[in-house]
Amino acid sequence: MSVLSSRHLLGLEGVPKKDIELILDTTETFSEVIERTIKKVPTLRGLTVLNLFYEASTRTRTSFELAAKRLSADIVNFSPSGSSVKKGESLRDTVHTLEANKIDMVVVRHSSSGVPYYLTQCMDANIINAGDGTHEHPTQGLLDMYTIKRKFGKLAGLRVVLVGDVKHSRVVRSNIWGLKTMGASVALCGPSTLLPYDVSRFGCDLYTNLDEALEGADVVNVMRIQLERQQSGLFPSQREYTALWGVNKERLKRMNKDYIVMHPGPMNRGVEITSDVADCERSVIREQVTNGQAVRMAVLYLLSGRRADEGGE
Amino acid sequence: MSVLSSRHLLGLEGVPKKDIELILDTTETFSEVIERTIKKVPTLRGLTVLNLFYEASTRTRTSFELAAKRLSADIVNFSPSGSSVKKGESLRDTVHTLEANKIDMVVVRHSSSGVPYYLTQCMDANIINAGDGTHEHPTQGLLDMYTIKRKFGKLAGLRVVLVGDVKHSRVVRSNIWGLKTMGASVALCGPSTLLPYDVSRFGCDLYTNLDEALEGADVVNVMRIQLERQQSGLFPSQREYTALWGVNKERLKRMNKDYIVMHPGPMNRGVEITSDVADCERSVIREQVTNGQAVRMAVLYLLSGRRADEGGE
Amino acid sequence: MSVLSSRHLLGLEGVPKKDIELILDTTETFSEVIERTIKKVPTLRGLTVLNLFYEASTRTRTSFELAAKRLSADIVNFSPSGSSVKKGESLRDTVHTLEANKIDMVVVRHSSSGVPYYLTQCMDANIINAGDGTHEHPTQGLLDMYTIKRKFGKLAGLRVVLVGDVKHSRVVRSNIWGLKTMGASVALCGPSTLLPYDVSRFGCDLYTNLDEALEGADVVNVMRIQLERQQSGLFPSQREYTALWGVNKERLKRMNKDYIVMHPGPMNRGVEITSDVADCERSVIREQVTNGQAVRMAVLYLLSGRRADEGGE
Repeated sequence: MSVLSSRHLLGLEGVPKKDIELILDTTETFSEVIERTIKKVPTLRGLTVLNLFYEASTRTRTSFELAAKRLSADIVNFSPSGSSVKKGESLRDTVHTLEANKIDMVVVRHSSSGVPYYLTQCMDANIINAGDGTHEHPTQGLLDMYTIKRKFGKLAGLRVVLVGDVKHSRVVRSNIWGLKTMGASVALCGPSTLLPYDVSRFGCDLYTNLDEALEGADVVNVMRIQLERQQSGLFPSQREYTALWGVNKERLKRMNKDYIVMHPGPMNRGVEITSDVADCERSVIREQVTNGQAVRMAVLYLLSGRRADEGGE
Repeated sequence: MSVLSSRHLLGLEGVPKKDIELILDTTETFSEVIERTIKKVPTLRGLTVLNLFYEASTRTRTSFELAAKRLSADIVNFSPSGSSVKKGESLRDTVHTLEANKIDMVVVRHSSSGVPYYLTQCMDANIINAGDGTHEHPTQGLLDMYTIKRKFGKLAGLRVVLVGDVKHSRVVRSNIWGLKTMGASVALCGPSTLLPYDVSRFGCDLYTNLDEALEGADVVNVMRIQLERQQSGLFPSQREYTALWGVNKERLKRMNKDYIVMHPGPMNRGVEITSDVADCERSVIREQVTNGQAVRMAVLYLLSGRRADEGGE
Repeated sequence: MSVLSSRHLLGLEGVPKKDIELILDTTETFSEVIERTIKKVPTLRGLTVLNLFYEASTRTRTSFELAAKRLSADIVNFSPSGSSVKKGESLRDTVHTLEANKIDMVVVRHSSSGVPYYLTQCMDANIINAGDGTHEHPTQGLLDMYTIKRKFGKLAGLRVVLVGDVKHSRVVRSNIWGLKTMGASVALCGPSTLLPYDVSRFGCDLYTNLDEALEGADVVNVMRIQLERQQSGLFPSQREYTALWGVNKERLKRMNKDYIVMHPGPMNRGVEITSDVADCERSVIREQVTNGQAVRMAVLYLLSGRRADEGGE
């Protein structure tokens, strides 16, 4: 039976193709489960998952919480605000406390890149990165790939454009690594101030002109623009951003016939994406959310090392 | 087998008598369940309920959480503060995200009237209104009716007085519609500044004098007074409110022999109700809370469309 | 079959030796459960536990939440901020509401000493004190004792030093009463400003000099120093506190050969304890956390009055 190469999911950089394929195939199974009337299987009964969210996130936290519950795992939400963090406890001691509580899996989000990796160094639990700083957000990358694959039947050979704040976006990074491993061609587009200095290491096509980037593309994945970046002087105004990098109906005409539009949410309608694009029949934004459920169930299941026929008390 | 006319519970206005009777009869069954040692049934196993509370409320949220857990449903608390709302996501997009997560039932509280109805327009889940603006709070209305019916063996022909902020109270509205459908006679009493301009549409007796209102009444249901209404100039002082509309022992003498006293909580003791009244043997305030559990179990069960003998994985 | 003398766990003062022995023996059983792959037993299925935390505490709340879930109980977190407390509801009315919701067990933390006792006076549920003011924190005392007993095979005859803020620490109080009942000898050490005026009633050896206190001791249990005490003028500076009452490697040389070091967490590394001591092979700080899980499972189980072979629906 197939197993993943790693006990953890920290990012998609360096994850072998066969692992990504295994996750995407397993996601298929769980996609069927969540279409049933009873969306629950006993697979992870008795397992304890910790949702460790240092950054507020209702979407991702809820998605993991539902995924864990649908696998019959016990899930505990641990929101460090109002807790030991305020009392000055170090991350290391918090982690050791969690470890001592015999947690099986930790889903972690943190504003600092590398925290999920750090956790693997000091505890036995399986660690799942739910977003760390500007590093990676691998389950988002996987759900984006799964969504594309469902539409096109493949990933290899497709041209995917990622538009927006390439410099700070962990979603962009996870998409790049995963898509390239699977043989897709990736183009990055955004204001030059929002491209990282070492952007060449990604080995992607680079564009500052969105019209040129979309020429002949199959997928456009629109990143949320953080309005606080403007305050930092990284782009002149929201209006200019929309004029130059906002995705609208007109621009989509340059794409291939069967193109799709994606956005990881939450959207700033009228800023990085127009409302008519977000709601058009080419938009798969809601399917991304549903697929996120199935991907997270697959990841929790595969990392747990359990078999589907185990579970129970 | 009896079923409700609607897949949702948005309010009691317009709900047919047979539906209210079905809910109250089903509540009877669940009242027995929560008196058992093991207060849990497998009826809703595998179903996912979302507690979507845009307004803080520990009482109602906890009551629904317990009701769902006692039916073996999975329940996820979604408190939009610190979440996508802050990031500027529209209610519509939040709802679509929830929908995409394959939630079966949503319990929603919101400061704007009409939000629960809006949810029925954009998602498939069963929607239960847990209080929307100044519109309705139907499970509170139902638990109040159930409590009255348990005491008097009937609702028809009873005289019920609702005292307080009629203008803003969603509890008052749900009580009015439900009680009238069931054949009770309803009187409203409060400062004229706290009666809505269209109060005549309710078809109730109106009083600004509490002593007159209580004359010959069977039930007095005392609404919580929001002290911020005074700051808005709607009544001169808390002291005056208490003097004119506060429920005390002396005033209760005007009621019928077997009268009962109700309050939806939390109480301002010494303001709208005196402590001796709140704790007297005619007070059914604690029974209201217990009955709230059973009513919410009944509503979740009936809306789910499941049969008691279904469930399991 | 052995049962506890009380339906509640409010503190360790006055708890008979046989009760403590029963809890510690039962903890042994649950220690084995949490070392298994499936750390879950059906013992408390159908039981509802309320985590009522008026003071923020992620560590203790999470430990109880995990303990309840591993016993298959339903647990509801009730954090009174943003709730009826803000609306001015009295503690008494909140408690009556909880009681009316048919909660089986309440785990309560509150900044006022005596609140857990008060709860026993107005509700039927089993009450477990998870820390009240400067009174007691009995499960912490029990887990400390269990940890010591596991290391030394006994409690009687050992010399245990409690260092720190004796005046305000509920952990110190629970340790004192429990350890003395079990026949250990207890020494208290700290600045004289942090010893309570009635310290003599504890019947312990008193020290203001840490080196003298540690002479011939088997266990040193280091209390967290609250930095706000300095602002209240109870000690001159953090640096002076560390110099005089901080536990470091040098000082440990005065202890008996098989000494152990404990701390209830969260630690101020470099203040009341040095990092090398916290992480040395004599430190049992992480085992304390693991044992806390097992102790809390034992306490929930024993207070519930259930037998291990009951449960189920």
